[in-house]
Amino acid sequence: MPKTVTAAMLAIGDELLSGRTKDRNIGYLADFLTLKGIDLKEVRIVADDEAAIVEALNALRERYTYVFTSGGIGPTHDDITADAVAAAFEVEIDHDPKAVDILLTYFQEIGREPNEARMRMARIPKGASLIDNPVSRAPGFQMGNVFVMAGVPKIMNAMMDDVAKRLTRGIPMVMRQIEFRGGEGDCAKPLGEIQKRFPAVVIGSYPFQAADGFATNLVLRSRDSDALEQAFDAVRAMAADLTQQGKARGWS
Amino acid sequence: MPKTVTAAMLAIGDELLSGRTKDRNIGYLADFLTLKGIDLKEVRIVADDEAAIVEALNALRERYTYVFTSGGIGPTHDDITADAVAAAFEVEIDHDPKAVDILLTYFQEIGREPNEARMRMARIPKGASLIDNPVSRAPGFQMGNVFVMAGVPKIMNAMMDDVAKRLTRGIPMVMRQIEFRGGEGDCAKPLGEIQKRFPAVVIGSYPFQAADGFATNLVLRSRDSDALEQAFDAVRAMAADLTQQGKARGWS
Repeated sequence: MPKTVTAAMLAIGDELLSGRTKDRNIGYLADFLTLKGIDLKEVRIVADDEAAIVEALNALRERYTYVFTSGGIGPTHDDITADAVAAAFEVEIDHDPKAVDILLTYFQEIGREPNEARMRMARIPKGASLIDNPVSRAPGFQMGNVFVMAGVPKIMNAMMDDVAKRLTRGIPMVMRQIEFRGGEGDCAKPLGEIQKRFPAVVIGSYPFQAADGFATNLVLRSRDSDALEQAFDAVRAMAADLTQQGKARGWS
Repeated sequence: MPKTVTAAMLAIGDELLSGRTKDRNIGYLADFLTLKGIDLKEVRIVADDEAAIVEALNALRERYTYVFTSGGIGPTHDDITADAVAAAFEVEIDHDPKAVDILLTYFQEIGREPNEARMRMARIPKGASLIDNPVSRAPGFQMGNVFVMAGVPKIMNAMMDDVAKRLTRGIPMVMRQIEFRGGEGDCAKPLGEIQKRFPAVVIGSYPFQAADGFATNLVLRSRDSDALEQAFDAVRAMAADLTQQGKARGWS
């Protein structure tokens, strides 16, 4: 069996829970990890609340190979993620000399005053290593198996390029898909039987409304390419049978 | 102090964690609950895995007034949410006579065979009440403080209209927003002082890149409209001061 690498995401911010901001980082990270062969197993969204962040972080970092957080590392009073991470790991937090350098250089370049609030962004838990931020420089950080990143999608996405180098990859899941032009209820029984025959393949079915009636995307994923091809052949044969029986309009 | 009503969401599905599907239900529910004065405190996304669903559900239903789930109530082998809810509540699950009626009537209307797989959608945990599905009829259900809904956004959204009637509303948070044309670092210190003066108001700051430089949305939310107006006046005065001092380009 191929070794599996697992991950969780913790998205932090009142704005995600009030509906003001629609999260775009979860989908990005999900796609990113899938390409690296890392299994995203769980996502949580919590408010800017230290106790909530600490509890979620401690639950997730125990359980999964990696945890990725987004949000709450800016200069304002509601940016409490770095402190919460320090609390979760029970370490001190202070201005990090490297982060201070990065920020002082940047603020000089763009002619901004390195005031107390801005320099708060150099506060990093003891023992963490910095994550490069090519967009607005204020770094993220890695503490143990936890990667702490910004919430602004453009910055979070850019930070993942630095994080990627540090990750152990898994064997990627290969995906095969067929669009079945019939309802889920038309194919559920034979599909379930195929799923039982191929335990190494994860088969999902996602219904949608096509122009000419109900349709279903049948998605097969596996790390075992032989099993995947065999299961895919079986699904295609099933679709052909159902079409011949008049229970479906076809497939593609 | 106004009574607060709290909620959590549990989105269920491998497709959300693999990146294949980008969730649209979380943002919808967040907006919906905000309008009803209900505080969404936490969101979790888990795979189509009974143990994961049961654990998350039991954690959330203990802690919050309401829990809303989406996904996993269709006719295929990967639709295991109803069984997982029954397991979490330690009750039996079986075909519900009302749900059977609804489905038989519907399948006759649209000329579909009420096969075993389709009728699986009538399996409802003992003690649950049905949630109306005006789109594709297969009902959701309410079990205790947990509302179990479909994952397809159009159906989930329609089900919320039935769910809404059963919810205790809270006092809605009123929101005021100002677009500050300066960076977060320019206003962080005075903004933090305003936050301290108005503990009944939640102040968030969300930076973005405007055409002419860094800008920040300052968002104030409160159930106390007097406090909100006072805090908003203070934020507006702060923006005026910073503009006069040359630390910002203005506000709107």
